Amino acid sequence: MTGRLAIVGLGPGAGEMLTPQANAELARASDVLGYTTYLARVPLRPRQQRHASDNREEIARARHALELAAAGREVAIVSSGDPGVFAMAAAVFEAIETGDPVWRDVDVIVVPGISAMLAAAARLGAPLGHDFCVISLSDNLKPWETVVRRLEAALAADFVIALYNPVSKARPWQLGAALDLARAHRPPATPVIFATAVSRPDETIEIADLRAADPARADMRTLVLIGSSATRLVARPSGQPWVYTPRSAPQDSP
Amino acid sequence: MTGRLAIVGLGPGAGEMLTPQANAELARASDVLGYTTYLARVPLRPRQQRHASDNREEIARARHALELAAAGREVAIVSSGDPGVFAMAAAVFEAIETGDPVWRDVDVIVVPGISAMLAAAARLGAPLGHDFCVISLSDNLKPWETVVRRLEAALAADFVIALYNPVSKARPWQLGAALDLARAHRPPATPVIFATAVSRPDETIEIADLRAADPARADMRTLVLIGSSATRLVARPSGQPWVYTPRSAPQDSP
Repeated sequence: MTGRLAIVGLGPGAGEMLTPQANAELARASDVLGYTTYLARVPLRPRQQRHASDNREEIARARHALELAAAGREVAIVSSGDPGVFAMAAAVFEAIETGDPVWRDVDVIVVPGISAMLAAAARLGAPLGHDFCVISLSDNLKPWETVVRRLEAALAADFVIALYNPVSKARPWQLGAALDLARAHRPPATPVIFATAVSRPDETIEIADLRAADPARADMRTLVLIGSSATRLVARPSGQPWVYTPRSAPQDSP
Repeated sequence: MTGRLAIVGLGPGAGEMLTPQANAELARASDVLGYTTYLARVPLRPRQQRHASDNREEIARARHALELAAAGREVAIVSSGDPGVFAMAAAVFEAIETGDPVWRDVDVIVVPGISAMLAAAARLGAPLGHDFCVISLSDNLKPWETVVRRLEAALAADFVIALYNPVSKARPWQLGAALDLARAHRPPATPVIFATAVSRPDETIEIADLRAADPARADMRTLVLIGSSATRLVARPSGQPWVYTPRSAPQDSP
């Protein structure tokens, strides 16, 4: 008997950004697995089993979900944001590739969600309005040299850059190093944004410039955006300025 | 009297991927503006004005929306996918920056949507599971040299690449040129995906390899993904293989 595994994106947090598809998958599940903090966002339903785990246990959680599904359960495994962007989907497919061959028969569905970068960009205006790169600053699973090589390529080619996993207790210095690299490529006035807990009650959005950007403004819940040479602010009478990157790039773009 | 302008992401097409926030904004609007094809996806509501326009008229549409909002209307302007990714949000902020100063008083909200790349990735597995770049292949608003420079940087630094606007009647050769560039950097077996009209009735997903990838498989509705050196296929007993990019990058990654 083979069940089903839905890898569900919860979006950034607010219920108004949870898709009907994600909601339907959570409603039909017999078992819901996830990092404790994300699981707490899912309304408890009768006769549903919950399996919370630490955020560093992605592969173990993926295997547990596949075991349950292979035994005939209807399983949902949840991620914040979109499950395909530095989240659970890649862990599940890695578990399938390297695990019990019967797991390849499990009916797997990936349910996209509003990712942290899209939610943050919407709050700011349109900072991702032109070509951009998305980089995880975590060097838990890749060498720091690879991070540096990708940052330098993105900076040199004038992409807007979205940084996931900017900092953790075990990785305190990487964001500072990334901002230092950016200072070698981009003007001091380049907008840098710290978007934390977007759409949740403790949301904060800070707009800095590259000269003054302080890596201490970021925590594990922060998405950091570094503008391209074209990214600009538009002042408004009340509230923070808008931040956007124009659709056009001039001939003399650096 | 100043009204309100919501820049609304419709997601890729299926109603199950339209967020409650987007739905609420469409329901409250007195006026809905958009490219004819996208407007056709929005259910018609009583007493709602609709303003359809051609897809090349983004700035004119943005100005029209701002005029209506500045006159006190409740306006929604729609984009497919996410409005912040090569879509209407950047056009609106460009119109605000360069237009009538009273437009800066308009209450503007950006409503994120499931972008084409997230929807396509979900259908495939987790191809965006690691660092990636997002590039518009259109050279209508930027020089082709800028496109080439960014493609080469992304290829050299081994990013997964998502290509928006791969082809149009006026731009028939650019995708072929981009795939030729990729062949100079990546192995012939690198997965290349053509994801067309994802979540709509005419959805097609084609998985090719870089050697055989045929640019004629793409049209205006296609999102093209080029794998990194780590992107791989996982065969399954029925259906297309899964495509995913592992969370880890080895020390000897190119």
